[in-house]
Amino acid sequence: MVREPAVRVRGSERIGIPMAPARLGLVGASGYGGTEFLRLAAGHAGIDVAVVAASSRAGERLRDVAPNLADDRVLEPVALDRLIDLDVVVLATPHGPSLELAPALVAAGTRVIDLSGAFRLGAAEFAEWYGEVHPAPELAADGAEAAVYGLTELNRDAITDAALVANPGCYPTATLLALAPLSGLVEPGTVVVDAMSGTSGAGRSSSDRLSLSSASGDVVAYGAPRHRHTIEIEHALGRLATPLGAIAFTPHLVPMPRGLLATASARLASGVGPDDVQHALVDRYRAEPFVEVLEPGTFPHTKALAGSNGCQLGAVVDPRTGRVIVSSAIDNLGKGAAGQALQNLNRMLGLDETSGLTAIGIHP
Amino acid sequence: MVREPAVRVRGSERIGIPMAPARLGLVGASGYGGTEFLRLAAGHAGIDVAVVAASSRAGERLRDVAPNLADDRVLEPVALDRLIDLDVVVLATPHGPSLELAPALVAAGTRVIDLSGAFRLGAAEFAEWYGEVHPAPELAADGAEAAVYGLTELNRDAITDAALVANPGCYPTATLLALAPLSGLVEPGTVVVDAMSGTSGAGRSSSDRLSLSSASGDVVAYGAPRHRHTIEIEHALGRLATPLGAIAFTPHLVPMPRGLLATASARLASGVGPDDVQHALVDRYRAEPFVEVLEPGTFPHTKALAGSNGCQLGAVVDPRTGRVIVSSAIDNLGKGAAGQALQNLNRMLGLDETSGLTAIGIHP
Amino acid sequence: MVREPAVRVRGSERIGIPMAPARLGLVGASGYGGTEFLRLAAGHAGIDVAVVAASSRAGERLRDVAPNLADDRVLEPVALDRLIDLDVVVLATPHGPSLELAPALVAAGTRVIDLSGAFRLGAAEFAEWYGEVHPAPELAADGAEAAVYGLTELNRDAITDAALVANPGCYPTATLLALAPLSGLVEPGTVVVDAMSGTSGAGRSSSDRLSLSSASGDVVAYGAPRHRHTIEIEHALGRLATPLGAIAFTPHLVPMPRGLLATASARLASGVGPDDVQHALVDRYRAEPFVEVLEPGTFPHTKALAGSNGCQLGAVVDPRTGRVIVSSAIDNLGKGAAGQALQNLNRMLGLDETSGLTAIGIHP
Amino acid sequence: MVREPAVRVRGSERIGIPMAPARLGLVGASGYGGTEFLRLAAGHAGIDVAVVAASSRAGERLRDVAPNLADDRVLEPVALDRLIDLDVVVLATPHGPSLELAPALVAAGTRVIDLSGAFRLGAAEFAEWYGEVHPAPELAADGAEAAVYGLTELNRDAITDAALVANPGCYPTATLLALAPLSGLVEPGTVVVDAMSGTSGAGRSSSDRLSLSSASGDVVAYGAPRHRHTIEIEHALGRLATPLGAIAFTPHLVPMPRGLLATASARLASGVGPDDVQHALVDRYRAEPFVEVLEPGTFPHTKALAGSNGCQLGAVVDPRTGRVIVSSAIDNLGKGAAGQALQNLNRMLGLDETSGLTAIGIHP
Repeated sequence: MVREPAVRVRGSERIGIPMAPARLGLVGASGYGGTEFLRLAAGHAGIDVAVVAASSRAGERLRDVAPNLADDRVLEPVALDRLIDLDVVVLATPHGPSLELAPALVAAGTRVIDLSGAFRLGAAEFAEWYGEVHPAPELAADGAEAAVYGLTELNRDAITDAALVANPGCYPTATLLALAPLSGLVEPGTVVVDAMSGTSGAGRSSSDRLSLSSASGDVVAYGAPRHRHTIEIEHALGRLATPLGAIAFTPHLVPMPRGLLATASARLASGVGPDDVQHALVDRYRAEPFVEVLEPGTFPHTKALAGSNGCQLGAVVDPRTGRVIVSSAIDNLGKGAAGQALQNLNRMLGLDETSGLTAIGIHP
Repeated sequence: MVREPAVRVRGSERIGIPMAPARLGLVGASGYGGTEFLRLAAGHAGIDVAVVAASSRAGERLRDVAPNLADDRVLEPVALDRLIDLDVVVLATPHGPSLELAPALVAAGTRVIDLSGAFRLGAAEFAEWYGEVHPAPELAADGAEAAVYGLTELNRDAITDAALVANPGCYPTATLLALAPLSGLVEPGTVVVDAMSGTSGAGRSSSDRLSLSSASGDVVAYGAPRHRHTIEIEHALGRLATPLGAIAFTPHLVPMPRGLLATASARLASGVGPDDVQHALVDRYRAEPFVEVLEPGTFPHTKALAGSNGCQLGAVVDPRTGRVIVSSAIDNLGKGAAGQALQNLNRMLGLDETSGLTAIGIHP
Repeated sequence: MVREPAVRVRGSERIGIPMAPARLGLVGASGYGGTEFLRLAAGHAGIDVAVVAASSRAGERLRDVAPNLADDRVLEPVALDRLIDLDVVVLATPHGPSLELAPALVAAGTRVIDLSGAFRLGAAEFAEWYGEVHPAPELAADGAEAAVYGLTELNRDAITDAALVANPGCYPTATLLALAPLSGLVEPGTVVVDAMSGTSGAGRSSSDRLSLSSASGDVVAYGAPRHRHTIEIEHALGRLATPLGAIAFTPHLVPMPRGLLATASARLASGVGPDDVQHALVDRYRAEPFVEVLEPGTFPHTKALAGSNGCQLGAVVDPRTGRVIVSSAIDNLGKGAAGQALQNLNRMLGLDETSGLTAIGIHP
Repeated sequence: MVREPAVRVRGSERIGIPMAPARLGLVGASGYGGTEFLRLAAGHAGIDVAVVAASSRAGERLRDVAPNLADDRVLEPVALDRLIDLDVVVLATPHGPSLELAPALVAAGTRVIDLSGAFRLGAAEFAEWYGEVHPAPELAADGAEAAVYGLTELNRDAITDAALVANPGCYPTATLLALAPLSGLVEPGTVVVDAMSGTSGAGRSSSDRLSLSSASGDVVAYGAPRHRHTIEIEHALGRLATPLGAIAFTPHLVPMPRGLLATASARLASGVGPDDVQHALVDRYRAEPFVEVLEPGTFPHTKALAGSNGCQLGAVVDPRTGRVIVSSAIDNLGKGAAGQALQNLNRMLGLDETSGLTAIGIHP
C-alpha cells in the first residue's frame, strides 16, 4: 500500500499535542455518529472541527440537531472545495455519499476517516452484499490503494499512515474484539453471534418503528441472515486474524438509546480449555487502554460503557456443549463509531491514542 | 400415570362455563407470576380465586402489591388447610415452597399447577442443576406419579387429567415452541439459543441491579452456561419431541418490564431447505389459537404480545452457514408464566382453552 | 338539540347485547387512537367494525400498522359512501378530516364519535385557538346542533342520544375529572395544571424528537401557554361544572409509551378543608365504574392503568399554601381516547357502559 | 462567620492546577452521588480522592458498586481518623451520618462539602421538617458557624472560604436557578413548582417501586406537600434572593435514570412583561459557564444535560393567566449533586470553577 507524500506531510509527523490543532471537516454532522464525534471533539485540545457539513439538514443549527451540543453554528452544505484543504475529513455519512466524497478527497491528498461501509469490503463482496458495483474499487478493501480497516486494536500500525480509514461497523467492532483472540482456539464454521443494539444504531431515523412509542418494550431480530455486518466480520477476521468460516450472525434491536452487546459462541478446538480462552483474551488486550477482559464467568454490561470508548469482554466455557461464549459490550456510538474514529484520528495525527477519549461511562 | 378419582371429580368433567365457578387458591400472590394470574383471572367467568396467599408479604393489601389490581383484599398467610378443599391450587412460588406444598396438596387430592422449577426435571437432573436432593422424586418428571409438563401445545392431552402440572419456565416455553417442530430437521448438538428477557423475568426483586436506575440502558448476559432453563429445554425436547443434544443457552436481561425473545439456531440436516422449515412450523401450529408463525424472513416483536398469551415465531434459513434461525417471542408473564397456567387450568377444568385469554397485546 | 329519528332507530333502542352487533366504521385506523379502538373492539361482542379506513396508510395491512392486532385486513381509503350506512362512525382523525367528514355523516343520519378537537369548542374559541374559521359552526360546542362533549362521567345523559360526540382530549379528561368536583371549593383564577404524557399522546409520528433515541431519558415542557387543551379545559368546566377562570396549563412529554398524569392545584376557597375536598371527590365518583378516588395523601400511578379505561385521583391539601393538589392518572389511549370513545359508544348503543372495558391495567 | 486559619492554608490559596493535587476523602461512595463524584473526579487533574469510604457496602470493590468506574479499589469503612488529615472531605451520605461526621471534621479544620440536607436549613426549620433536633445548631444555616449554602451561582463568594458547604438538593438547585432572578418580578405567595426527577434521585435503593419492572411506564407524584426540599427552596430564596412566600411544590418520579425538570410558575407583579422576565434571566446568567437561558418560548430537555453540570432555563409569559412559567432542567446527579459539589470544590481550592466539569451532555 503506497501512501502519498502529501498525506504524510499533513498530520502524521505530529508528536504530542500540536502547536496548532489539526483542522478537520465533518460531513454527515446531523447523524448520531456525527453529533457524537462533535461531542467528543469538543473535549479534545488537538483538533479543530473547522467545517461541519450535512446534506438534508444543512441550514439548521447544530443546537437544533443535537441539543446537548448547545452549539449555534449552522450546518453548512456538503461542498468538496470546503473540505480538500483540511488535514482530515471525517465522513459520518451513509455509504452512498462516502463513495462519492472519499475518492475525491483522497485524490486531493486529504486524509479521510469514513464511518460508512463503503470501504470495508473487497469490491466483489461489496457488490454482492450492497447490490451495487463499487465505483472506486482501488480504494475497496482489496484494492491497490485499499482503505485501512480501522479496528484500532487489531490494525494499529496500518492506521498511522493511512490515507483512508474504513472505520468499522458497530457490530463488527464488538464481535471482532471478542473473536480475534480466539483464532486457532475454535473450530471454523461453528461461530454463532447474536447481538443486540440500542436504537441509535439504526440512525437518526424518522421511522415509526424507532419511535419510543413503538420501540420501548420491544426486542426484535432483524436483517438476518443478510445483515451487511456479517460479511464485514468474516472479511476482517480473514485479514486481521484467522478466518473462522461463515458466521451465523443475528442482530436484534433492544429498547435503549445506545449500547451494543455481541454474544459470540463457537465450538472449541480439540484440547482447548477455559484457561486457554481466558489467557488468549487477557494476553491480547493486556496493554490496551480501551479493552478490558473481565474475570471468567463475568459478563459485561453495556451501561457501564455509555458515552465511553471502552469495550468489555467476558468469556466462559461450557463443557457440556464444548463451546466458548464471549460476550462483548461497547457503546455503539463510542467504540462502535465516533469514539473509534477519534482513536484512529489520534493515531493518524501522531497524538496519544486516548486523547479526548478518557471519559468514563455514565452510570446510572 | 394414575390419576386419583377425587381429582377427576373436582374439575375435569366440566363442559363449557360451569354453573358454579371453580374454586381456586393462589400461593405466591405477591410475585409477578401471581399478580399476573390474578389480573387474568379477574376476566375469567369460570374461576373464583377464593384464597390469595403469600409468605413474606402476607398481611398487605393486594392493591399495595400490584396497584393495577385495585383490590383491597389482604394477602393471607400460606396455610395448607386453607387450600386442600379447593378445586385447584396455583403455586406461583419459588421451587422451595413448591416442593413443600405440592406433595401435600396432591396427596389430598387437590390439583396443582406449579409455576416453579420444582417438578419440571427428573430427580437426578434436579439434583445436579438445583444442588438439592429432590424431596418428592415420585412427582419429579421421571417419577411414578410424575408431574405433567404444562407446555400446552406440546402436551395437551396429558394436561387434561393431570393432578400436578409443572408449568414451564419462560425461556423453555419460547424455545421449545420454536424448536419442537424442527425435530428431525436439524442436527443434534448444534443448537444455540440466545434469549432476552424483560426484568420481570427476574422476579419482584429488591436487587439494585434490577432498579430502573441500573437496568435501563443495559443489556447483559447472565447465568450461562448453567442457567437451569437449559436442562429444562433439553429434558422437554427429549420427552415431547426429539432430543437435540446439549443446548448452548445464554440468557440476557434487556431493559423492558416484560417480554421475552428466544433466537434459536441449529444446523439443518442434510437435504432440508427453507420450505421444509416453514412447513414444519406452519403445520405444527395451524390450529393453535396462541401460536402464530410469521411469513418467512419476518421476525416477531415482543411488544406485539405484551399482556397476551400469544407466541409468535419467525424463521429464516441461512444458506451460507446451513443454519436455520427461529426467533420466538412471548410475554414472559403471559405464555411464559401466568397465561399458560390459565391455559392449562382451562384444560384441567374442561373449559375452552382460550377462556380469559383472548385479550390482544397492548401496543404501543 | 334536535335528534333525527334515523339516529335513534339505529342504536339507542338496544338493550343488553343486541342480537346483531352494531355495525361500525373507523376512520383514522392507523393512528394510535384508531388501533387502540380496534384492540378494545376486538373484545366487545356487541360491535362489528365493518369498515376500517385510513388515508396515508390505506392499502397497508392492519398487522403492519399495529403488530399486536395480528390482523391481515387491509386499510381501505376513506370514502363517505362506505360509511353512511353504518350505525356509528368513529373518527380517530386529526381535526381537519373530522371537520370534513362529521358534518356529512351527521347530515346523513349516521352517528359519529369524533376523537379530534374539531367539535369540542365554541366556534369563536376554535377560530382563536386553531387559527381557522370553523366550517360547521352549527356542530361546534355552541352551535344549534352542537356536538355533545363526551366526558362520560360529567355528561352521561346527553351522550345517550347524541348524533355527534366530541370525545375529549387526553389532558382535559384527566384534568376535568380532577377539577370538576372542586367547583365551588376553590378560588377561580388560581388553577395551575402541570401534566405529563407518554409519547403516544403525540401521535404515531415520524418525528425525530419522538424516537426512542431522542425521547428516552428526556422530559420537556411544550406548548405552553397556548396548548389547545387549555381552552378545552376551561370551556368544559364552564359547561359541565363551574368556571374556574383561566387555567395555567403546562404539558410535558415523559419517556414512556402511554400513560398521562395531570397534577392540578388551586387555592381553596375560604373555610374549605381537607375533608371537604376528599368528600367532594368521593361523593362525585362513588358510583363510577372507571374513576377511583384514592385515600387522602395517596397519589396515583399511571402504570396501574396501562391498557385500561380507568382514572385514579389522589388529593391532598397543603395548609401552608392554602392550596389543594389533585393528581389524576389515566391511560392517554384508554380513558384519554379510545377507551372513553368505546364507553360513549356503549351508552349510544344502549349497552352496559363497561362492555369491552373491564380489562385491568397491565403491571408490571 | 469565622474561618480558621488551618482551613485557609489547606486549599484556598491555590491558583490554577496545584503542583500536588488536593487530597480528598469521599464518604458515602456507594451511593449515586458518590459514584458520580468519582466519575467526575477521575477526569480532574487537580484532585486525588485518597479515601473512598462507605458504610453498608464497605469491603466491596468500587467496580461492583459502579461498573462504569472499572475500579478495583475496595470501599473502606468510615473512620474519622482516615479523614481529618485530608484537604477536603465530601460527604455523599444521608443527613444522619453527615450530622455526625461534619462537626467533627470541621472542628479538626478539615473542610467539608456535604451533599445531604443536614446543614441546609436553620435549626428550627430542620427540627420541623426532619422531625429531629439539630445536633449541631451552630453549623445549621442560621448558626454562628453556619454552613455555606453551595448553590454556586447564587452564593459564589461565600463558598470560596467556606469550612462547610451545604451542597443543595437537586430540586432546589433547578428551582432556585429558575426563581432567583425573578425576585421582585413576581407576586409572593403565588409560586407553584411541579418537578420531575429520574429514579436516581431516589437513591440507590432496593425498593421494589424503583425497579425497572415497576417504575418503567410510570409517573407518580409523591411527598407533597411536605417534601423537605420545599422548605429548602423557601429558605434559600429568603437568604440568596427575595422571599417568595410559601411554595406549592409537588415532585414526581419519572421513568428515566437521571435528569430533573422543575417547571415553576408565579403570577407576575403589576406591570411586568415578557421582556422583563427574559432580561432578568439573561442578565443574571450571562457570565455563567453552566447556566444557559434559552430563547423565549423554548423549553429545555433534560436529556441535553445528561452527565453534564449544566442547567438550562426556558421561560414564557402567559398573558391570559398573568403568570410566568420557567422550566429548568439539570442532571440531578450533575448540577443537582456531584457536579455542583465539584464546582464548589474547585472554588474552595482556588481552581478554575469548570475544572473537570467541561463534558457535554450525552445525547442520544
